[in-house]
Amino acid sequence: MPRYALRVEYDGRPFAGWQRQDGPASVQQTLEEALRALEPDMPSVAAAGRTDAGVHATGQVAQCDMAKDWDPFRLSEAVNWHLKPAPVAITACARVADDWHARFSAIERRYTFRIVARRAPLTLQAGQAWRVIGPLDADLIREGARHLIGRHDFTTFRASICQAKSPVKTLDEITVEERPYPGGQEIRLHLRARSFLHNQVRSIAGTLERVGAGAWPPARVAEALAARDRAACGPVAPPDGLCLTGVGYPEDPFGSR
Amino acid sequence: MPRYALRVEYDGRPFAGWQRQDGPASVQQTLEEALRALEPDMPSVAAAGRTDAGVHATGQVAQCDMAKDWDPFRLSEAVNWHLKPAPVAITACARVADDWHARFSAIERRYTFRIVARRAPLTLQAGQAWRVIGPLDADLIREGARHLIGRHDFTTFRASICQAKSPVKTLDEITVEERPYPGGQEIRLHLRARSFLHNQVRSIAGTLERVGAGAWPPARVAEALAARDRAACGPVAPPDGLCLTGVGYPEDPFGSR
Repeated sequence: MPRYALRVEYDGRPFAGWQRQDGPASVQQTLEEALRALEPDMPSVAAAGRTDAGVHATGQVAQCDMAKDWDPFRLSEAVNWHLKPAPVAITACARVADDWHARFSAIERRYTFRIVARRAPLTLQAGQAWRVIGPLDADLIREGARHLIGRHDFTTFRASICQAKSPVKTLDEITVEERPYPGGQEIRLHLRARSFLHNQVRSIAGTLERVGAGAWPPARVAEALAARDRAACGPVAPPDGLCLTGVGYPEDPFGSR
Repeated sequence: MPRYALRVEYDGRPFAGWQRQDGPASVQQTLEEALRALEPDMPSVAAAGRTDAGVHATGQVAQCDMAKDWDPFRLSEAVNWHLKPAPVAITACARVADDWHARFSAIERRYTFRIVARRAPLTLQAGQAWRVIGPLDADLIREGARHLIGRHDFTTFRASICQAKSPVKTLDEITVEERPYPGGQEIRLHLRARSFLHNQVRSIAGTLERVGAGAWPPARVAEALAARDRAACGPVAPPDGLCLTGVGYPEDPFGSR
């Protein structure tokens, strides 16, 4: 069966998360239903990142095995047709080798967490950023974030239900971007790692918000990390601000598209 | 009665436009109801730009006359409280002179029109940009836009129901910004003028899209303008992509906020 890589974009708000489950619709289920409108016996799809309820993606990557030898462009067009009106879309599609795997072949995940600091509630970006009162000091956030870069035991920044075998991960990057936002400011945290623990980005974002607000001195991030204790973590940020922006592979399946 | 200037942000999707009318809720009506929760006899509010149904704003400016001498910060906080859960928010508030007028004192309006060119439907930005198939050539758009800058009779780019006394307007700026977008590209048109005719920005955006797609040579924009005939206009772009981003006054009522 020919295997395809799909770059998937979605608005996480109406979904129970990526993973298929009983109860409210998941992104996986929505995508599988669109693919099975083309081939009813298509096996389950797999994805690089199992995003939680309310978390968005502009660069999720999934794989599917089709019975027919589809032209990748025609496959993405047909899937997008059947995905309507769900806020899920295929933005790239490529034929890949039979042993390529969306999750296990991935060597990098990139997430962006958006924090808008202002008094007024969000309107146009409601559900797509975490609104805090602020103001936030971007330099303090950078100073706090610096302690998290590298290989560490991230037990403090890991959900209690996390199923990863080890809490040790290597965080390659946290870039802190500041931009103006009407009535306040926006902070974007760009995180990059081979893989993340469950709730790791939201735990880090919630902790760094405390640092930016001046409630935590930056050094307390290092202490929290060293504690290897969930109780030492700052509040976990809501899913609204989180977006899976990209997945890296040894070779980009989508080329330059 | 003390007069206040309000900078208003809204997601235009659920509204029938700015102006109060019979039928579906308008932004004006929503804002007036929030203000009348504070002072039941507050007179009608006025705004700098009467945006159409589905058009957004990050920098609309309105005025209100209150009986009580409100601290501007407390007024904006109270109004935002009563605006919930409508996607309308006050992002700045200032006391202004009694003869200051949100509409008649304005000397500049700024609009941004977003076009996303890609095959896949929009998800996260649905309703907040005009999605076209594309691709679009930004340089061709710039060449077409150049013909519209300056003082012209814009009859071609004016809705038949437009109530302005004269079709002659001075367009000070059209900046064409291109940026990557997952699965395609985004074009942002930034327009600036003292005032605009009804549907002028959407008529220009729809025409320039035809130029960017290669369907219209850029010189046809000059011919359409010279025709002073509504029939010479390209298709009018949908409201989704349009956002009133700012209003200019001889002196900024909000200072640096």
